[in-house]
Amino acid sequence: MTATTHWTLARRAERMNPSVIREILKVTEKPGIISFAGGLPSPQTFPVSAFAEACAEVLENDGRAALQYAASEGHAQLREWVARQLPWKVDPAQVLITTGSQQGLDLVAKVLIDTGSRVLVETPTYLGALQAFTPMEPRFVGVASDAEGIDVDDLRRQAPGARFLYALPNFQNPTGRTMSEARRAALVQAAAEAGLPIVEDNPYGDLWFDAPPPAPLTARNPDGGLYLGSFSKILAPGLRLGFLVAPAALYPKLLQAKQAADLHSPSFNQRLVSAVLKDGFLERHVPTIRALYASQCRAMLAALEREMAGLGVQWNAPDGGMFLWARLPEGMDATALLPHAVERGVAFVPGAPFFTDAPDTRSLRLSFVTATVEQIDRGIAALAQTVREHLPTPVPA
Amino acid sequence: MTATTHWTLARRAERMNPSVIREILKVTEKPGIISFAGGLPSPQTFPVSAFAEACAEVLENDGRAALQYAASEGHAQLREWVARQLPWKVDPAQVLITTGSQQGLDLVAKVLIDTGSRVLVETPTYLGALQAFTPMEPRFVGVASDAEGIDVDDLRRQAPGARFLYALPNFQNPTGRTMSEARRAALVQAAAEAGLPIVEDNPYGDLWFDAPPPAPLTARNPDGGLYLGSFSKILAPGLRLGFLVAPAALYPKLLQAKQAADLHSPSFNQRLVSAVLKDGFLERHVPTIRALYASQCRAMLAALEREMAGLGVQWNAPDGGMFLWARLPEGMDATALLPHAVERGVAFVPGAPFFTDAPDTRSLRLSFVTATVEQIDRGIAALAQTVREHLPTPVPA
Repeated sequence: MTATTHWTLARRAERMNPSVIREILKVTEKPGIISFAGGLPSPQTFPVSAFAEACAEVLENDGRAALQYAASEGHAQLREWVARQLPWKVDPAQVLITTGSQQGLDLVAKVLIDTGSRVLVETPTYLGALQAFTPMEPRFVGVASDAEGIDVDDLRRQAPGARFLYALPNFQNPTGRTMSEARRAALVQAAAEAGLPIVEDNPYGDLWFDAPPPAPLTARNPDGGLYLGSFSKILAPGLRLGFLVAPAALYPKLLQAKQAADLHSPSFNQRLVSAVLKDGFLERHVPTIRALYASQCRAMLAALEREMAGLGVQWNAPDGGMFLWARLPEGMDATALLPHAVERGVAFVPGAPFFTDAPDTRSLRLSFVTATVEQIDRGIAALAQTVREHLPTPVPA
Repeated sequence: MTATTHWTLARRAERMNPSVIREILKVTEKPGIISFAGGLPSPQTFPVSAFAEACAEVLENDGRAALQYAASEGHAQLREWVARQLPWKVDPAQVLITTGSQQGLDLVAKVLIDTGSRVLVETPTYLGALQAFTPMEPRFVGVASDAEGIDVDDLRRQAPGARFLYALPNFQNPTGRTMSEARRAALVQAAAEAGLPIVEDNPYGDLWFDAPPPAPLTARNPDGGLYLGSFSKILAPGLRLGFLVAPAALYPKLLQAKQAADLHSPSFNQRLVSAVLKDGFLERHVPTIRALYASQCRAMLAALEREMAGLGVQWNAPDGGMFLWARLPEGMDATALLPHAVERGVAFVPGAPFFTDAPDTRSLRLSFVTATVEQIDRGIAALAQTVREHLPTPVPA
């Protein structure tokens, strides 16, 4: 062929960007590096033998149905399970099974965001949500947030005309923080008064250490919330299964968007998960994940206390989840520090990409679930050494 | 809560509609009905025991990796397999694994369609593609088509300013028709001269009866084509796995859209399919599907000859795939006939929804793969009886 084909990109495609984190992770893919960067659940927690049994059972009993096309809404048994285990009255007809909760975010974007729509997010917020929403060309508005979560006064100011608030109240990604009971009550009240819908994302809620987090926002005003959940952190992410719970008025459009997106989530995987969930499997399994992550979090906190002493680094102590949030001393920049840390054999994610405006360039996210306790000790020591070497005012070693 | 939450839908959501076919299928979900309506592969063809072996093998050897998050591009081994088996030079780096080929259509829409973009489609065309493209608000333009496929002169007229042509050259859904070699050559030449990209969808190409179809359009001008394939018809749809092959310049944006849509397709399923494909499995398996569908197609053609004699009904004889296309006599309407057919115990899909403009209301789609030969005989007899009863000018029985 002599002529050149003209591929014209859609305007929204210009807004799409490679995931900053995935680009960072490429830098950190060095043999032997200790990574606090990724958001990968510990593979130790994957119930491999339960899945092996479920595969055999599903293929033996329902093989042909499990391998056939299926309803876009999801497998009936799984939808019922989701409805049953949520702590407010949910009709299985409100449950839509999604291809990971990332797809839930994509469907929300398609159904609720027009070009220029104001979408309120926490400061900072989950990068994957920004990525899922961006193609629909919203205008992101960061709502002021502190260690207890969203600042309700700022929310009231920003609410008029916004399409929705996106919030991750439990063990948030990236900060690990949890919204307090008082803050939840005030937030839901303020949102309801302003007529502002809440899109609540809860992938980590089951991963608490000492006590469960307060009730979800959606439980307090079900018609005002769209709730997203995931099987990735309590079973395994490689099956790509999540769910959303939508008010009845919104469900049909989300379902149509789902049909258009991938017809349905894998029916085989849905039946597998249904089979694994039987007989209260999670009641035995999830406590083992909680105990592991709690011990790894404690190890990281102890290592930080020990290694960062006198360096002026700050960090929080999460009540669950996979991440903690740290802050370098004034005058330091986490993005600039990263290559030096990688040189010393340790990786983290700089906090800046999680902000929609005015990034806190001193912040960084540390995952405590992928590395072993021994690696955590060595990795935090290496990180402290890197900080020490790059302090604006050198501190004696 | 006293206040009411205001859920404002995006403008594109108003354009989304429930799948007409899924609505029709609901009407036909009557016990005992013989359905020529659905597009379901025959579950007889699903290699259940091969999947059972693959599950055991993958979980035994790579269980934790298979259940973990994975690369958005897809499993390396599967991408290599796809590249290797395509009949033109494809770099595995051009292959993106998708959650069914339906997701490929969704990604194409996001990356290539702006509001009002002209998108050229065959007359008639695959409804699932219209559904996937519609949320991005294109303007569909039906290109005149005949039994050999797209009318190249009409394509030349319509090409200027169009974003792309969507084409399904092999055993098309809904018509079952296959684009001839001469037509393919002329079409690709005309598209290249006009600089018009082609999005080529080929889910059925392996399901030929007597001889393989001519080479894909993309094989003739790889930089001018984006090719979509699927594992749904040659292995099983319940795993939701397909792929796309994109020119290098376009790949990064499709990958970013994929990341935002569901991070990656299920890594477990990708490894399963990789394991099943080993050792030339498809070379033994696909011929059994071809033989089954060919026999069912022959049975339907014979039944049509026998039962429709003298009624003025026309139909084609596909060279592969899952569907044939029929046309009622003048003065009849397939949508109006459907409830009467369902009353007689047989269902089909009216052709009208597959047209973007000026629908042929006499047309209908018959799937020959879901029903058994005995059901095909009874179903076509019932359909003929229904036609006979509703002929505008009655014909003696």
